[in-house]
Amino acid sequence: MNETIRLLQAHRSSRSYKSDPIPEEILDAIVESAHRAPTSVNSQQVSLIVVRNAASRARIAEIAGGQPWIAQAPVFIAVVADLYKTALGVEKGGAEQIVQRSLEAVISSVSDVGIMMATLMTAARAFGLGIVPIGGIRRDVRGMIDLLGLPRNTFPVAGVVLGYIDEEAPQKPRLPIESFRHEEKYRSEKLKSAIDAYDHTLVTYWKKIGRKDGLSWSANMAQYYSSYSRRIKAIAEEQGFTIEL
Amino acid sequence: MNETIRLLQAHRSSRSYKSDPIPEEILDAIVESAHRAPTSVNSQQVSLIVVRNAASRARIAEIAGGQPWIAQAPVFIAVVADLYKTALGVEKGGAEQIVQRSLEAVISSVSDVGIMMATLMTAARAFGLGIVPIGGIRRDVRGMIDLLGLPRNTFPVAGVVLGYIDEEAPQKPRLPIESFRHEEKYRSEKLKSAIDAYDHTLVTYWKKIGRKDGLSWSANMAQYYSSYSRRIKAIAEEQGFTIEL
Repeated sequence: MNETIRLLQAHRSSRSYKSDPIPEEILDAIVESAHRAPTSVNSQQVSLIVVRNAASRARIAEIAGGQPWIAQAPVFIAVVADLYKTALGVEKGGAEQIVQRSLEAVISSVSDVGIMMATLMTAARAFGLGIVPIGGIRRDVRGMIDLLGLPRNTFPVAGVVLGYIDEEAPQKPRLPIESFRHEEKYRSEKLKSAIDAYDHTLVTYWKKIGRKDGLSWSANMAQYYSSYSRRIKAIAEEQGFTIEL
Repeated sequence: MNETIRLLQAHRSSRSYKSDPIPEEILDAIVESAHRAPTSVNSQQVSLIVVRNAASRARIAEIAGGQPWIAQAPVFIAVVADLYKTALGVEKGGAEQIVQRSLEAVISSVSDVGIMMATLMTAARAFGLGIVPIGGIRRDVRGMIDLLGLPRNTFPVAGVVLGYIDEEAPQKPRLPIESFRHEEKYRSEKLKSAIDAYDHTLVTYWKKIGRKDGLSWSANMAQYYSSYSRRIKAIAEEQGFTIEL
């Protein structure tokens, strides 16, 4: 099996970092890898904000609900849906950008953000760095907008922590593949047994790594997905993403 | 520079395929790579539908606005935001899932879809396959839901074409990196000159590869982003994604 496949299949998020800086040429190569990633209709509707300032990282750690690895690792890259940049192009092209008022714009730009995030993570791991994807910045979108100085028609979707790993994380098991991969059509019949098997696997895994507060996947999902954790629609609207149709 | 970085920086979408099938073990390794990719709060809120049936691929090519490479290449993988699966977990955990009614759920699941797409594309390219990311399935979301038999609380966000390349595509230039990478804060000052430079670069590129209808980036953006190309909010609502807050 080749190096890239091995790297992807060994994916894990490590949450323990040394403070060693990332050499400029490595950071450049990681960002340039993301810069080559595809975007919807070549819109290039994503921008990265590379945050190294310690006070800013401490603030982001706080915004994200207390995630110390954001302050500990030397680099945080915010990945921003950027329809401000595209609006300048539309204006130069003699028209007015209105696409940001549609759900389509949210979906196309946020999926492009995800593509960038994965590219950043894979590139960083190819250099032996650890990573943590951070959606927790959406706990305080306004705080992130202010911290990063983001203009209208942009939205800070997520970020990635990058640094040299102090203690490597184990690899967390996944739901059985039959709940992830379907052939030709979606098959729901196997889901319940897959979830039962995974709940058992995950609890066994938490015990094995000595984590006493670890929940089954179902209990975890019941905790997270039975409430509205984040009320971000009003801020998206203020930024220009009004989701009218 | 290592193999993975080289692969990422050489990214391109190829739109000319042989009909040769992809060996099962290669397709398995690609899907298993995506299966290991991270998701928000370990929700695993993404599912893949592997489509090899020729009639289905022809239908998807049509839905996507006439993209013949979808019918030509042997495999299309639909990447689906899947909060049906998580709802089963929440229910098993003794609660009711309501998160799908929030913008947060759209953003977290769609960014996870993007992460999966990039992982599929990188894994496929590591095996020497060509890829094309396809957002065009959102031209007829209902058509895709019916074709793939998708349940409530799911949404077909995008897909990836995979196959053996007949004719390799050249690599399309990107906007200058200063319009993509910012340090500490978003800097809008350099955007207009970056766009001017890129408009020139892209038109030169189109001429070089002999494409006579190639537009500048600004003209392209003016064409795509000055109208609502896709009205998908009503279908998202029907699926359960009501975006109430």
